[in-house]
Amino acid sequence: MKPENNRPLILVTNDDGIHAPGLKTLIDMARKLGDVIAIAPDEGRSGMSHAITIKYPLRIKRLREEEGLEFWSCSGTPADCVKIAVNQLLEKKPDLLLSGINHGSNSSISVVYSGTMAAAVEGGLHAIPSVGLSITDYSSRPDFSGCILYGEEIIRKTLVDGLPAGVCLNVNFPRIPADKIRGIKICRQARGLWIEEFDKRTDPHKRDYFWLTGYFENYEPDDEDTDEWALKNDYVSVVPVRIDFSDRDAMLKLRSAYAKAGT
Amino acid sequence: MKPENNRPLILVTNDDGIHAPGLKTLIDMARKLGDVIAIAPDEGRSGMSHAITIKYPLRIKRLREEEGLEFWSCSGTPADCVKIAVNQLLEKKPDLLLSGINHGSNSSISVVYSGTMAAAVEGGLHAIPSVGLSITDYSSRPDFSGCILYGEEIIRKTLVDGLPAGVCLNVNFPRIPADKIRGIKICRQARGLWIEEFDKRTDPHKRDYFWLTGYFENYEPDDEDTDEWALKNDYVSVVPVRIDFSDRDAMLKLRSAYAKAGT
Repeated sequence: MKPENNRPLILVTNDDGIHAPGLKTLIDMARKLGDVIAIAPDEGRSGMSHAITIKYPLRIKRLREEEGLEFWSCSGTPADCVKIAVNQLLEKKPDLLLSGINHGSNSSISVVYSGTMAAAVEGGLHAIPSVGLSITDYSSRPDFSGCILYGEEIIRKTLVDGLPAGVCLNVNFPRIPADKIRGIKICRQARGLWIEEFDKRTDPHKRDYFWLTGYFENYEPDDEDTDEWALKNDYVSVVPVRIDFSDRDAMLKLRSAYAKAGT
Repeated sequence: MKPENNRPLILVTNDDGIHAPGLKTLIDMARKLGDVIAIAPDEGRSGMSHAITIKYPLRIKRLREEEGLEFWSCSGTPADCVKIAVNQLLEKKPDLLLSGINHGSNSSISVVYSGTMAAAVEGGLHAIPSVGLSITDYSSRPDFSGCILYGEEIIRKTLVDGLPAGVCLNVNFPRIPADKIRGIKICRQARGLWIEEFDKRTDPHKRDYFWLTGYFENYEPDDEDTDEWALKNDYVSVVPVRIDFSDRDAMLKLRSAYAKAGT
């Protein structure tokens, strides 16, 4: 897309694929604020995390082009979408990357598995202010009114102010209408774990197979600075996610331990 | 595997798959220190990051069983391997998780894309002391002598001391024999980026496709506390990787910015 005006250029992607209502909603939100190039997986790619496609080639297809919008599909993952957009579709670095709106929560530890958030991290790596947005509602037709009202505030603020260095945002919306939402909370991710419960079955050829399933266990349900607490208490949660995973405190501890061992 | 003795129980996995020489080397290293249960993808799963398999069921197959070793293949990703091992194969939590030895570096920002390191992060989420190991050599028959010498030291230390809370280790070995290695450095991940260079081709049906390729650009080649510097200077790099991605400093900055805006 050629930048032909002074409107911000906004790259939009997701992991639920080109047909997801959450993507359409996010594109509509973004178009109010700038020119949009959207590129999304040609089918759902949930749980793909930051996977990239190495073994197979990627294909992309222009689905729509109109004033202020180009819309592409991509055969790869959300991270692939960002990479190929930056490298092949955009003539300048976008002013903002938006990923979502994901159908289902990406709060707490789900950030690790999320393709939505991987796209935002990939944007952050490319020094693009990047925001992943998710609603804690797995239905295909959730009530997006809260996403629209509060999401636009967050997006507008990010466009104007940028983000602190080295982070992208993980925004989750509670499953309630806009007028029930109490506001925005800046949070940390709650400590927790997906407790796996593999569903073991036997196929017609008498061979076992397993469906990955499970439930989320929140290790700190009473901690008011966590995203889980915010969402349960009708707030929009905003977690700044580091794109550098090194732990400085642990480095000091390990250096001391390895020095003692004489290595 | 039933724990029938007091030897440590070590879970081993990788992302290069069951046939990778790096996996065999790591299993041999682990068997010196404990009983081993190994489970690895049935084929290579590089670049899968923390992807999990939701759309399809998983299959596992016992390939070998002998004293002190069970060896399984799994149809899923490295993260799936850890989940199904913990849930279906192990009667107690293992004392250690080892992932690798990956054929190719996972230093700097490659940690984001790495299936090897995702398995270590998944272990960390399950509160298992977890270490991912990689050699900066993409060949199928690298010289593992340095991995064996220094890797065993790191593994032994992790078994005895555990790890600081909330981290796993990202260990990378330079591509030189053991006697050329100068020691172990505790590092942070270098800031850098994979610069994409999509290789655009046209298929026999006149449709374009793209191979993802690229080169790594190190943004801070002279910083001696980074993993890239350590590896280039013949050290083994050890980066403690956080399993909680929240950025505390950015939380404070954003809270102040949003408070000013009156939200």
